Amino acid sequence: MVDKPLVHDVAPFDPAFQAELARLLAWRRDVRHFRPDPLPTGTLDRLIGLAALAPSVGLSQPWRFVSVETPDRRAAIRAEFARCNAEALAAQAGERQARYAGLKLEGLDQAPDHLAVFADPATPQGHGLGRRTMPETMAFSVVMAVHTLWLAARAEGIGMGWVSILEPARITAALAVPAAWQFIGYLCLGYPAEDHEVPELERLGWEQRGPQALLRR
Amino acid sequence: MVDKPLVHDVAPFDPAFQAELARLLAWRRDVRHFRPDPLPTGTLDRLIGLAALAPSVGLSQPWRFVSVETPDRRAAIRAEFARCNAEALAAQAGERQARYAGLKLEGLDQAPDHLAVFADPATPQGHGLGRRTMPETMAFSVVMAVHTLWLAARAEGIGMGWVSILEPARITAALAVPAAWQFIGYLCLGYPAEDHEVPELERLGWEQRGPQALLRR
Repeated sequence: MVDKPLVHDVAPFDPAFQAELARLLAWRRDVRHFRPDPLPTGTLDRLIGLAALAPSVGLSQPWRFVSVETPDRRAAIRAEFARCNAEALAAQAGERQARYAGLKLEGLDQAPDHLAVFADPATPQGHGLGRRTMPETMAFSVVMAVHTLWLAARAEGIGMGWVSILEPARITAALAVPAAWQFIGYLCLGYPAEDHEVPELERLGWEQRGPQALLRR
Repeated sequence: MVDKPLVHDVAPFDPAFQAELARLLAWRRDVRHFRPDPLPTGTLDRLIGLAALAPSVGLSQPWRFVSVETPDRRAAIRAEFARCNAEALAAQAGERQARYAGLKLEGLDQAPDHLAVFADPATPQGHGLGRRTMPETMAFSVVMAVHTLWLAARAEGIGMGWVSILEPARITAALAVPAAWQFIGYLCLGYPAEDHEVPELERLGWEQRGPQALLRR
C-alpha cells in the first residue's frame, strides 16, 4: 500500500537540546501582561502551522483557529469576561474574595493578537477512529495543539495567556462560528511585558505548586 | 506580599533550538511498535516531573499518574481494549472494516511501561479559579501534562502511544482509583521499534493530514 521508504534514520536529540527543552517547559508561563507592539507579519500563521503538528485522535485534526480582529468582536469578548469574572469574584468566600480581586487574569486589552480555539466534533476526518468510547478525545486533541502553540511561541519569546473565564455558548455566538463547534479556549498572544520563572498565581499568593505522586497498581 | 525579585533575565532560546523544537514536534508520533527492553530506572519519575511543568487552570495541577505494573491489571486493560476494539471494528462500514482490521492501534503487549492518567476534578488546589464556567479545563490541564510528557520522552528517544479505545468507567474500576477521578488516557511508553516521520494512520491509508485554515472575525 505504501511504496516509499517507511523508516528514516532520524538524528537523535542531544543532551543540550533536552536541557533547553526542560528550560522551555519550566519557563513557559501563562502571560497576562503584554507589550502592545504587534507580532511580525506571518507569525500567527506560522505558529498555527506548528500547532497542527500536534497529535490528534484518528488523525482527525479537529482544531479550528479563529483570529479575533475587529474592535466590536474584541469588545464582546471583553464584556463576556467581565461578566463571568464578576460572578466568579462574588462566588469567592471570605478573605479569598479580596485576594481574587487583586489578580489580573487576562491580557485582553494589551495583547496584539487574539485567537479563539474550537473543536469540530463532527468532522469526518479520522473516520471516527479512537473516539467511539471517548468522544472527549476530540477536545483533547485541540488542547494538545494549543499547548504546542504555547511552547512554539515561547521558544520565540512570544507569550501566551489562556482565558477560560468565559461562557462557551456566548463565545460561539459572539464570533459567529458553527454552533456545533466546541469552544476550547481564548488565547492572548504578544510579547510579554515581564519574564518570570514562577507562575503569577504563585507569586501573588493564590496557590502553590505541589509535589507529584506516582501511584502504582 | 513577595519579597524576592520577581523578574529574572531569562536567556532567549536561539534559532538552533527553535529549529530542533520544530523537528521534535514533527517527529513526535503515536507509537504502537515498541522494543521490549525497559526504560532506565527513574526515567518514568523524571518524565512525570517534567510533565508537571505543564500549565494548569488556577494552578490546580489536577493530573494523577498511575503506573500499571502487575500482570493481572495489565491483562484487564488488554481485555478491555479487545472488547472496545471489536465493537469499533463491527461499527465500521463496508470497505473500511477491512482497513480498520489491518491497523495496529496499541502497543500494550510490548511496551515496558504503562501509565494510566486521570484528572481529579474535585481537587481543592487552585481554589476553583478559572474553572467555574468551564470545568472541562481540569481535564484540559491533564491533557497538556500528557503532551508535555510525550514531547519530553521523544526528546530522549522514548516513544509513547495513547490508547483511547477503552471505556473510562471500566479503567477506573480495574485500577481501583477513586471513582470521582476522570480517566484521560492510557499511555504506553518504551523505545520505538521503528522511527517514522509520517503518522502510521497516514502510511496505512486510513487518513491524511490536511491543511490548516485560519478564520478571521
